[in-house]
Amino acid sequence: MIIAVDVDGGDYAPKEIIKGALKAAQEYKIGLILLGKKEVIHVHAGHYLKKLPIEIVHCPQTVTFNEHAVEAIKGKPQSAIVIGTSLVKQGKADAFISAGNTGAVLAAAFFILGKIDGVERPALGAIITTRPHIPSLLIDAGANAECRPNHLDEFAHLGNIYAKQVLGLENPRIGLLNNGEEEAKGTKLTLETHQLLKKSKLNFIGNIEGHDISLNKADVIVTDGFTGNIVLKTLEGLGDALLKVRKVGHAIDSAAHLRGRALLADVGLGSMVKGMDFEECGGACLLGVKGTIIVAHGRSHARAIKNAIGLAKRTAEKGVDKLIAEDIKSRTKAGTEGDPKNVNTPV
Amino acid sequence: MIIAVDVDGGDYAPKEIIKGALKAAQEYKIGLILLGKKEVIHVHAGHYLKKLPIEIVHCPQTVTFNEHAVEAIKGKPQSAIVIGTSLVKQGKADAFISAGNTGAVLAAAFFILGKIDGVERPALGAIITTRPHIPSLLIDAGANAECRPNHLDEFAHLGNIYAKQVLGLENPRIGLLNNGEEEAKGTKLTLETHQLLKKSKLNFIGNIEGHDISLNKADVIVTDGFTGNIVLKTLEGLGDALLKVRKVGHAIDSAAHLRGRALLADVGLGSMVKGMDFEECGGACLLGVKGTIIVAHGRSHARAIKNAIGLAKRTAEKGVDKLIAEDIKSRTKAGTEGDPKNVNTPV
Repeated sequence: MIIAVDVDGGDYAPKEIIKGALKAAQEYKIGLILLGKKEVIHVHAGHYLKKLPIEIVHCPQTVTFNEHAVEAIKGKPQSAIVIGTSLVKQGKADAFISAGNTGAVLAAAFFILGKIDGVERPALGAIITTRPHIPSLLIDAGANAECRPNHLDEFAHLGNIYAKQVLGLENPRIGLLNNGEEEAKGTKLTLETHQLLKKSKLNFIGNIEGHDISLNKADVIVTDGFTGNIVLKTLEGLGDALLKVRKVGHAIDSAAHLRGRALLADVGLGSMVKGMDFEECGGACLLGVKGTIIVAHGRSHARAIKNAIGLAKRTAEKGVDKLIAEDIKSRTKAGTEGDPKNVNTPV
Repeated sequence: MIIAVDVDGGDYAPKEIIKGALKAAQEYKIGLILLGKKEVIHVHAGHYLKKLPIEIVHCPQTVTFNEHAVEAIKGKPQSAIVIGTSLVKQGKADAFISAGNTGAVLAAAFFILGKIDGVERPALGAIITTRPHIPSLLIDAGANAECRPNHLDEFAHLGNIYAKQVLGLENPRIGLLNNGEEEAKGTKLTLETHQLLKKSKLNFIGNIEGHDISLNKADVIVTDGFTGNIVLKTLEGLGDALLKVRKVGHAIDSAAHLRGRALLADVGLGSMVKGMDFEECGGACLLGVKGTIIVAHGRSHARAIKNAIGLAKRTAEKGVDKLIAEDIKSRTKAGTEGDPKNVNTPV
């Protein structure tokens, strides 16, 4: 298993990215391809380069945070994002992870890897954990701001496979995020999506509301990329706020001979905070492209990168992209129209 | 100041509603009109009916949670929602609050009170507090699931006045909730709204993201009612989860001689949890109709109702609806087209 890592993107690149990658190489027993400025990688990785199965690919160009995604990809073929994605395409890496410009990572995946046959809109699946050890998958977490009902139906199918494989759930409960539980409530988008999902063979549990997210009512939370992005970041923001509170708590209670700390741990706050910390899950997986691409958070420190690499490994090991392709084929066969988009809406 | 209270709607009606109303009458020194089943109110309010300035209006009909809003309003003229709203219209009550069927409360407000001249879409403004004592206003919290840019522009103006009057802010920072900070990022709706807000005279600080909500980056968070509803309920759900953790903490630490409890309070978790508890703010205000209407949460207990009544009092005292009407008039005068909807987009 070889994971290609962009060490040239993210708020704490390259140092934290390299640190996280080295930890991952040791913990997960995987090979790494580090993509970035050769000299910089040598400085930060030092003697690990000899000890661990690490290859360096020098990338003279850098895609910055605010660059226009498509222009960046076309104008910077020697960037870590373009080269890393190409390594996946060529089969030289099993997955690519980047904490850089998300738009550029998505654009590179679309252009270089291409969409799986039958997938119209690849989507970002993000694992969220508001309750300790009970993850759910939010899809789309931000790849497609404006969607049509068939896109959301597609996200549900992509998320279903991912939840089975990576969350290890037998029959994931699929919920449609909506402004009301009732079937008759919602926007044109959610009303029509509800009908598509009802007709599907998925374990569709109906609409769920915002408060159901932390109740873990659904394993796969289906929504458009605009709402998904905002929900994910709202949760992250609160996670950050809680972490701050927790850190202050630790400072106080170490003075108080650890009693308070033990209490915090007892009541589950610690694990709750841990669960809400985005660094725990590491990144979101781009589902629907031919290959494994993990988008790590721009604010990733070493721990987030290590966890993102772990996620990349699990995703690649399971061959999620192949399973998605098979699922679409089998649904296409079963469908009356031969078009996977129509599988759930036979005329 | 007389507040009309629907004691016939909400998960914990009538008992908790009446309990909260009685507390409010004592704490805020206001008169009450309790709307519901006369006998039931007598049972629960008991001797307070003689001690406090309370009037009872018997409402033989009940609007249930799942009823179609408009049908309920038309078919049940003797319901608390219709009669309570009518009391505001007639000037017999300064405000009406209900924890019942939200759609029906909104419909009654539209039909009976009517929209303020120049307002196309009244919206729900909800006060959210993810940091202790630093509230912000989310608008629209759920009245309009599908919106156009001029609606969001209108919400910003409504929210601006409310934040000035009820949150006591001199020059509220208006933020547009979006899936990216950059001006060029967003959906058609947010991209166009951004341009309208930029041209307005509001203190528009640009786009804000989900994580900015708990950072209190904006005082008024402008969004469509679909996204607003989901964000509000996501926050509420987490607040609930935190409250549970906190309660367990209290049980443990009362055994541990209050030391842990003091710690929790010290680190600010207590007030953070308190802030995230929807019962603290009590309800959302329907802005843009002729009168003061507060929509309380369906799950309201006595404390939430008491606080919702407090909010109704503050809103009515400030004459927010009159100020909104004046603001629209002055913007209409200033505008080149004479149409308030065009004030910020002169041709």
